Amino acid sequence: MSYFRPNVEAMSGYVPGEQPQGGGFVKLNTNENPYPPSPRVVEALRKWIGPKLRLYPDPNATAVRERVGRLFDVSPDRVIVGNGSDDILTIVYRSFVEPGEVVAYPTPTYSLYPTLARIQGARVREVPFPEDFSLPCELSETGTKLTLLSNPNSPTGTVVPSDEVSRLAESLDGILVVDEAYVDFAESHCVDLVKRHDNVVVTRSFSKSFALCGLRLGYAVADETLVAGMLKVKDSYNVNRLAAVAGAAALDDIEYMRENAERIKRTRARLAAELERLEWQVRPSQANFVFARVTGSRPAKHVYEELKQRKILVRHFGDSLRITVGTDEEIDTLIESLRDVLTAGWGSPEGETVHG
Amino acid sequence: MSYFRPNVEAMSGYVPGEQPQGGGFVKLNTNENPYPPSPRVVEALRKWIGPKLRLYPDPNATAVRERVGRLFDVSPDRVIVGNGSDDILTIVYRSFVEPGEVVAYPTPTYSLYPTLARIQGARVREVPFPEDFSLPCELSETGTKLTLLSNPNSPTGTVVPSDEVSRLAESLDGILVVDEAYVDFAESHCVDLVKRHDNVVVTRSFSKSFALCGLRLGYAVADETLVAGMLKVKDSYNVNRLAAVAGAAALDDIEYMRENAERIKRTRARLAAELERLEWQVRPSQANFVFARVTGSRPAKHVYEELKQRKILVRHFGDSLRITVGTDEEIDTLIESLRDVLTAGWGSPEGETVHG
Repeated sequence: MSYFRPNVEAMSGYVPGEQPQGGGFVKLNTNENPYPPSPRVVEALRKWIGPKLRLYPDPNATAVRERVGRLFDVSPDRVIVGNGSDDILTIVYRSFVEPGEVVAYPTPTYSLYPTLARIQGARVREVPFPEDFSLPCELSETGTKLTLLSNPNSPTGTVVPSDEVSRLAESLDGILVVDEAYVDFAESHCVDLVKRHDNVVVTRSFSKSFALCGLRLGYAVADETLVAGMLKVKDSYNVNRLAAVAGAAALDDIEYMRENAERIKRTRARLAAELERLEWQVRPSQANFVFARVTGSRPAKHVYEELKQRKILVRHFGDSLRITVGTDEEIDTLIESLRDVLTAGWGSPEGETVHG
Repeated sequence: MSYFRPNVEAMSGYVPGEQPQGGGFVKLNTNENPYPPSPRVVEALRKWIGPKLRLYPDPNATAVRERVGRLFDVSPDRVIVGNGSDDILTIVYRSFVEPGEVVAYPTPTYSLYPTLARIQGARVREVPFPEDFSLPCELSETGTKLTLLSNPNSPTGTVVPSDEVSRLAESLDGILVVDEAYVDFAESHCVDLVKRHDNVVVTRSFSKSFALCGLRLGYAVADETLVAGMLKVKDSYNVNRLAAVAGAAALDDIEYMRENAERIKRTRARLAAELERLEWQVRPSQANFVFARVTGSRPAKHVYEELKQRKILVRHFGDSLRITVGTDEEIDTLIESLRDVLTAGWGSPEGETVHG
């Protein structure tokens, strides 16, 4: 007999990307920023480490809400802060989705969406993206309580333009989440849609562009009524005091983030060009990673494994690889290793351990 | 029309204790530790603040799991780490309680338990504690999927002995959570019960005894099978990298915590004696707070409000007050103000603003 709910008993957990705790890896698998966070973030954290850690944080992370409000010219009452944008996604599911109801999203996309549905006891309606990764028409006809759009999409890096997202929001009876975890590497964003649509929740993360994966901080912007209800569902002290301090300092130094993002976009262009030179099919990316279909005789899985043996981690999806944009030096190492893998004798790749 | 689930629409949110962000208050309302965290925690945090914040944390906070395992002589596979013990409680509800099912607990107790039930769409069975705050017999006959016992209990500070908790666990068909947020101020604990009962989850917090409310860190110890299932339900990166670093350092300096707790217990005895001198009915407390029924002509609410006007925050429950054990100096200030409140002319208390 199991004590667990049947949906929890039956499910497999979400498998995050490999996080080797030992060093020595070129880590291009979980879309971390290769550059450090702003020096002003580090300075603010240093100032706050001490006796005040004994006190609870502000339950609503007001310092972060106010700065996000100013950034987008919306009231802080339209902002909810979370323990990473994954926490915000969890809050969204628990707020809007009854067990047995349906959640819809285009695929391939962030694999946390179906995991959260299973935990909530909800069903999923997966609508494949067309070949050009434009918005699938059926998405507006699912009649579901919750539709999710990762935009830029992971793992493809593709973007649906804001006016098409607006039309989708208009057509839906339920909530539309626009997951903008990667948007600071893109040409446009959808936050302004919350001023016109009372059913749109735009989620953001400090992990990627602000280089703060380790601190777990994200937020959402939405209609005041949606935010007020979601505040009831979140854990009362969901945001760590140091994460809130770091987030406020990061937003006070947003130019640092923007320059960092520009640098990553230049390296992204170079990485894409190098992969095209290998005749791989590369998607135009607006994120801090590049998604490429591996062509030629070596399957993507083989390339992934050979790179891993050379201490380079990337992410493998079917016939494709998703490669995080690292530093220029890391990308040089990757390209060199890739050439090595692709020219080595097939079946006895260099570096393979002979083993009984 | 509301987008929210009906249970979420209908509920009020959990109201955390007041957290004035301005200074100047003697804060005896949310059971924070009046002393700072261990210097080794501060040192470890200083060492970790820097470029590595760009990387995701270890999803399972292995450094904390291993130390907790050593502390209680259990495998790290019996430990799950959370973003505060509130996060662990949320994970428990989502793992074990189907919407429509019933959750039971003795009352009065931690008011988050019914809030989490409402979010999950579950019903509650509240069983009043008898006058002596021993375990109510009916609790073993509820037939529910989840029973919760805050032990030491908040807001009363009372404790149910481990052998009685063990008999309760034996009698239940469902899960028993023993919430030990305050246990480091008590004479005994229940962690060893997880070795004998496959349905017991003991939750712990770094907030109170380790003085780390601001960092959000808690954990649970339970049967491996329970932990494995709960790991599927938690957010993949639920624990902040700095919180995990602080937790590991705090456990490496557990003597600091124990001395700190002894100091608080000495002040607790003094506070209880002073309140008894006012002829209030004081419960023997094994937590870092004292629960007292206010006697005499002034209602508890009046005393609470008068203290607040004097910039002293305590927590008010019906005819009683819950007062956190602060420093000796803070408790002196409290007692002095209490004498002042209780002797001032009733109806025109000193310090009240005259206002048109």
